[in-house]
Amino acid sequence: MAETPSIYLDHAATTPVDPRVVAAMMPYWTEVYGNPSSIHRYGQAAAAALEAARRDVAEVLACTPNEIVFTSCGSESDNLALRGVALAARAAGRGNHLIVSPVEHHAVSHTAAQLRDSFGFDVTWLPVDEYGRVNPDDVGRAIRDDTVLISVMLANNEIGTIQPVAEIGAIARRKGIPFHTDAVQGGGMLDLNVDRLKVDLLALSAHKFYGPKGVGVLYVRKDTPLLPMLTGGGHERGRRAGTQNVPYIVGLATALRLAQAEKETANTRLQALRDRLIAGVLETIPQARLTGHPSERLPNHASFAIRGVQGQDLLVHLDLAGIAASSGSACNTGNPEPSEVLLALGLPREWALGSLRLTVGRQTTDEDVAYTLDVLPRIVARLRAL
Amino acid sequence: MAETPSIYLDHAATTPVDPRVVAAMMPYWTEVYGNPSSIHRYGQAAAAALEAARRDVAEVLACTPNEIVFTSCGSESDNLALRGVALAARAAGRGNHLIVSPVEHHAVSHTAAQLRDSFGFDVTWLPVDEYGRVNPDDVGRAIRDDTVLISVMLANNEIGTIQPVAEIGAIARRKGIPFHTDAVQGGGMLDLNVDRLKVDLLALSAHKFYGPKGVGVLYVRKDTPLLPMLTGGGHERGRRAGTQNVPYIVGLATALRLAQAEKETANTRLQALRDRLIAGVLETIPQARLTGHPSERLPNHASFAIRGVQGQDLLVHLDLAGIAASSGSACNTGNPEPSEVLLALGLPREWALGSLRLTVGRQTTDEDVAYTLDVLPRIVARLRAL
Repeated sequence: MAETPSIYLDHAATTPVDPRVVAAMMPYWTEVYGNPSSIHRYGQAAAAALEAARRDVAEVLACTPNEIVFTSCGSESDNLALRGVALAARAAGRGNHLIVSPVEHHAVSHTAAQLRDSFGFDVTWLPVDEYGRVNPDDVGRAIRDDTVLISVMLANNEIGTIQPVAEIGAIARRKGIPFHTDAVQGGGMLDLNVDRLKVDLLALSAHKFYGPKGVGVLYVRKDTPLLPMLTGGGHERGRRAGTQNVPYIVGLATALRLAQAEKETANTRLQALRDRLIAGVLETIPQARLTGHPSERLPNHASFAIRGVQGQDLLVHLDLAGIAASSGSACNTGNPEPSEVLLALGLPREWALGSLRLTVGRQTTDEDVAYTLDVLPRIVARLRAL
Repeated sequence: MAETPSIYLDHAATTPVDPRVVAAMMPYWTEVYGNPSSIHRYGQAAAAALEAARRDVAEVLACTPNEIVFTSCGSESDNLALRGVALAARAAGRGNHLIVSPVEHHAVSHTAAQLRDSFGFDVTWLPVDEYGRVNPDDVGRAIRDDTVLISVMLANNEIGTIQPVAEIGAIARRKGIPFHTDAVQGGGMLDLNVDRLKVDLLALSAHKFYGPKGVGVLYVRKDTPLLPMLTGGGHERGRRAGTQNVPYIVGLATALRLAQAEKETANTRLQALRDRLIAGVLETIPQARLTGHPSERLPNHASFAIRGVQGQDLLVHLDLAGIAASSGSACNTGNPEPSEVLLALGLPREWALGSLRLTVGRQTTDEDVAYTLDVLPRIVARLRAL
């Protein structure tokens, strides 16, 4: 019996840490281990590494280092953006109204829902088209006098669709309303220049671009009022308490620099693999359709709705065949209901139940794609025959 | 000229990561890198490591694994305890009143203050004696019908005093009020059995016991209502969203197991070093006094008030002599004002300004202590002569 291969096609869920990133982090556990808040040499050596990382990240985002807040993950960054801005704005009497897209990651949508249900905020959920795209004009129409924050993600985790963030940002800016984008999913592949994107807040997570899980960034444009949601020491200029995780922050900065520097070459390669996957699935599997935008999508992201199969069953059989895939967000695993994102596209339930996400990455090869395209149609046929 | 030594006496600020802990973490960046929420084999391998770590931590705390919430740091654990319990209790109509000691870490005291100032809670700050100890009877007297949470730390970071947590817990339990203890500072050295301590919530941070910075624990006793403060995916049974930092969680569990298993032997050694430091300072420096409790204190913790010097000046001169020390909390560095903790002891300002904390650890030697006791009196004399 041939050995089962081990093919990882779930780079949207998480990525392995780049060995160059591991190497960059290594000195900071046992050698340069000081608390960066301490004034002695141990502390100052750690603080120097922390601030160098902050400058590196700021350079990628084209902002000032003071506008970078290090957090423990993308979810925390999104939470801080929404809670921090919403609660600060209300305390200042500016209003009570949030505008959020209906295809956001749960870190945004559940936070908006909690602000509504437990803190009395009013939330407008924007419409999206069949590809999950927000029409910037709809954002303009949703803005009210009491709107305090708009949140629309850069690229969707489940369906790969890239949003017209710069256009939305232009509208938000004209109205003087802070605009947050969850850039977690696109962080390693898309342009993150905050002025071109016209955003006031932007969330990143290192583990989506070959850095470690457990460290993130929130960019906060100067003079954006923010009530901290994690209070204690005055770390991160009073915006996020907690002794900084120096090794991971160094790792995040290293991973971000590498991913951004290599992105043109990497994206071209990923896109070719992705396009073969998409074309292959649509050709060989009847009643399969692409979800998300056909062209305005992440270069590594192929997602499908396959009628008449259950996403979970598909994943189990793919796993047995040695292919790691996802039915949508990893965070939503185990939930047999179709995701809100797929339903927001207007996809009928019998299609939305059979969702499949294949996301390629640095280690994906042509052979991996060929093997997947060989195995997947047979698994679908077998499941449909049951 | 003799080479300057490099003596680290700031183990209360942070500790180097134990090489055994680094070794335990290593596979989880590049090999077992799956997202623990994914159902494929990559995800399940990560989930298995995560749940094994949870069981290890639960064993040390003598609780069930489901009562363990992994967080990004001790500050986050404290924030989640206070915000989560206070906001959930108010939503359930149980009340609006918090009881907090005046010698808490800022992660507790600033969070209580924000709950008061921005969320309308009422806070009672307990009295403490000259050693910073809470009298359990005072807790009993402070309890009201609308009290929803009591928070008193296990051991103080600045002055080392250990609180009578079990006695306070007994009172809280009789009245049916959730009781949180910030055990961050004592986590590696003290008993953490949550039933013996009679606590409902307990915060830990790995970097205080030779684990990495950037990972913590909140123990939450079963059936303690908690409004999550970080929303998104359903991680940690809905209590803390964000993809789990598997390597650090494995590291935390490893570090906690090691520290707890070795604590009797380690504490005896640390206490001997500490006692030499205390005796030496009090003998050789006129107008120096111990801060915190003389016997009910952390085994590695020596803290002083030295009249007529500025803590910051002392630290700079010690650093030049090769000794890393602290004037109190690392998080408070750069603030020339005496800390609230020292003022809560009733220490006069001219004493409180000259605070010095020397905390020994695994790598501290007899020679380090001897050198420090040789250098420190001369630095104090020189500063006083200026």
